[in-house]
Amino acid sequence: MHSVLTVEHHAPSLDRATTYTALIPDTGTPPFAVLYQLHGASDDHRAWLYKSNILRHVDGLPLVVVMPSGENSYYVDAWERMVVDDLPAHVARTFRVREGRAAIGGLSMGGFGAIRLGLKYPEKYASIYAHSSKLVETGDDHDAAVIAAQVDRKKMPALAFDCGVDDYLIEHSRTFAATLKSLGLPHEYREHPGAHTWDYWEEHLPDALAHHKQVLGL
Amino acid sequence: MHSVLTVEHHAPSLDRATTYTALIPDTGTPPFAVLYQLHGASDDHRAWLYKSNILRHVDGLPLVVVMPSGENSYYVDAWERMVVDDLPAHVARTFRVREGRAAIGGLSMGGFGAIRLGLKYPEKYASIYAHSSKLVETGDDHDAAVIAAQVDRKKMPALAFDCGVDDYLIEHSRTFAATLKSLGLPHEYREHPGAHTWDYWEEHLPDALAHHKQVLGL
Amino acid sequence: MHSVLTVEHHAPSLDRATTYTALIPDTGTPPFAVLYQLHGASDDHRAWLYKSNILRHVDGLPLVVVMPSGENSYYVDAWERMVVDDLPAHVARTFRVREGRAAIGGLSMGGFGAIRLGLKYPEKYASIYAHSSKLVETGDDHDAAVIAAQVDRKKMPALAFDCGVDDYLIEHSRTFAATLKSLGLPHEYREHPGAHTWDYWEEHLPDALAHHKQVLGL
Amino acid sequence: MHSVLTVEHHAPSLDRATTYTALIPDTGTPPFAVLYQLHGASDDHRAWLYKSNILRHVDGLPLVVVMPSGENSYYVDAWERMVVDDLPAHVARTFRVREGRAAIGGLSMGGFGAIRLGLKYPEKYASIYAHSSKLVETGDDHDAAVIAAQVDRKKMPALAFDCGVDDYLIEHSRTFAATLKSLGLPHEYREHPGAHTWDYWEEHLPDALAHHKQVLGL
Repeated sequence: MHSVLTVEHHAPSLDRATTYTALIPDTGTPPFAVLYQLHGASDDHRAWLYKSNILRHVDGLPLVVVMPSGENSYYVDAWERMVVDDLPAHVARTFRVREGRAAIGGLSMGGFGAIRLGLKYPEKYASIYAHSSKLVETGDDHDAAVIAAQVDRKKMPALAFDCGVDDYLIEHSRTFAATLKSLGLPHEYREHPGAHTWDYWEEHLPDALAHHKQVLGL
Repeated sequence: MHSVLTVEHHAPSLDRATTYTALIPDTGTPPFAVLYQLHGASDDHRAWLYKSNILRHVDGLPLVVVMPSGENSYYVDAWERMVVDDLPAHVARTFRVREGRAAIGGLSMGGFGAIRLGLKYPEKYASIYAHSSKLVETGDDHDAAVIAAQVDRKKMPALAFDCGVDDYLIEHSRTFAATLKSLGLPHEYREHPGAHTWDYWEEHLPDALAHHKQVLGL
Repeated sequence: MHSVLTVEHHAPSLDRATTYTALIPDTGTPPFAVLYQLHGASDDHRAWLYKSNILRHVDGLPLVVVMPSGENSYYVDAWERMVVDDLPAHVARTFRVREGRAAIGGLSMGGFGAIRLGLKYPEKYASIYAHSSKLVETGDDHDAAVIAAQVDRKKMPALAFDCGVDDYLIEHSRTFAATLKSLGLPHEYREHPGAHTWDYWEEHLPDALAHHKQVLGL
Repeated sequence: MHSVLTVEHHAPSLDRATTYTALIPDTGTPPFAVLYQLHGASDDHRAWLYKSNILRHVDGLPLVVVMPSGENSYYVDAWERMVVDDLPAHVARTFRVREGRAAIGGLSMGGFGAIRLGLKYPEKYASIYAHSSKLVETGDDHDAAVIAAQVDRKKMPALAFDCGVDDYLIEHSRTFAATLKSLGLPHEYREHPGAHTWDYWEEHLPDALAHHKQVLGL
């Protein structure tokens, strides 16, 4: 299985120490592609590792998985800089990762982060997969629909997302899917049985990994 | 030597996961007294463990040392609640610690936190020792001098602090010592050679531990 | 959910530093009952946390879960002393755990450890639940059948174990169940679909927790 | 300062999971040179980080520091393979480290490991620095004097070691220095005030780093 690394470092955008978890493949040959996987509100860099079986699901994939702490930031402002600038810079100087675009994913607040950052920085991310996303319509730069309307279509990442039919946030995903359709932006949106729970994310994490695998050509 | 524990928990005041480091004595008999030791700006719960020899300095002391992350918060607002309420509650339900007042210490931003929280909550802290404190005069509840003027003198913690003569913040400590003197509040203030550096804190951490040891009767 | 603690300590039986993972309940009132959960060969104290969803499965249970590293020791000799003596002593001086007998469980090499140590030290363990156990017949003190034949029947722990029908070790469990039957020792043995895989252990960990919950009266 | 990484991985030579600590520079440009720094008996991969100020002492050095756990193995047999084969292979596929020879160091049991492995595998190590080494004369492959007599002199690493005059092991270092002299092998041996204590190692770790810095051309 992948090695599990706990990385304590200084993040310039936060001007302080923070910690991320990284999974490093024990098969395949570096340089490796990278997936940035974001947690939801109230959680931290350990959430995916502790509450899902992500370590087993990535077994055999030549993919470095980087899981930062985003606190309750929604990955905007200083945390946007942390995820988009600091983290890739730290990963690139530390690990043997390939150049070129990464994948980004997450759940709930992290699903929002994955979609918003993925579409806002298409030169950095080739693949997006979000679960149960919290996509509030604010009408400004924090609004994924506003970002989507401005996306550089030539660089548009391969975008997929899903949501459980009993998720209290499902209208967020449905509305966003309708917006993408009206904008003519390619995407995959799927609904499955389930609610806003780790059982749901555990079940659909493999869908996300399969998407990234295909897009990144792994 | 003490065991080193990394504690990942949910902090109600922050409404999210956070992590503290705890040192648990391998000698003596529980329940143990507790020292809350606060880091400075840009650092986290690992700073004292990694950058000083605190693990060696507490060897043989029947004292649990709890080192939280305070981010760059100055330990006010939600972080004040975290340090003063959440952390002791989590420590008390987790570890075999004695009832009654704890000790609190720190450096720079954490020296400020130790002095301000120690004086604001004298029913919780019996002993305060701060190094190289950043004590800005704001004139409100964030100002240690304002807090000191209001302290319940019958519960006044045993307060000691020091600063290096080449520390760029030394006027903070001098001004605060003068304020304490004018208020007639008992305290110990010492200046030593040195600046705002880990060499200084490494050298004077034993002074802090000796102070807490005496006050807590260890 | 439970807090996750990484505990770095000195083990007298090994005469060296080692590390265990502990899960501490965030609900209920201490002192808490304790489950010692053992990993299989090639794994370490992180295996159950990383490769199963044990953190979610114990949610709401007022139970401390202690997961040591047993290296490839089969939990005999110095490691037997570590698990049976050092670990409970360290847990008892560190955490707020209740007196009286604990629960013990594990998989494969750890299933062997749980059955063998549970039956050898019935004054220490009230409840045993083992998955996919490696139970080699050696005819000596390392042989669970030998230990079972000598168990103090008045203190006999509540013993349960299971195995997947496609597990390459299934004859170990079947033979041991037959031995217990011939000895007239009460036990529960169940077979389920599945093999020697984490999918199997993920699926049947809740059975183990339900068993311990009932036996410990949680 | 360097980032601090905790690396949980599978070691083929041990056929099980183990953990090392790595320090990754925050200055300089990869690929970085590597120092393998070994702990003494009873300690583990955290010893240098927790009990010395190594994190501060390497500040600014473009050097990756890898600190494995060697248990009480003296770094022979399976552990020799772990340190000499597994660890560099894992480091090379994970981190951006430069090809060519590394540095190796340690204290007591780890000083023995550094000298013995450094001299036995001069194609792998360019620089050796050992403190307070435990160098037992066994007359076989475990004996550093035997290894020294067989060293490939064209590849001889730059060897330096020190010991405290009050160290109970000082005759080990003196005898080995005499052996090196009689063999005509270049080396530096220094004695300093002090005993077999962390105060001594804290004080002389900078000597070791200065040696490696010069030899590695950092």
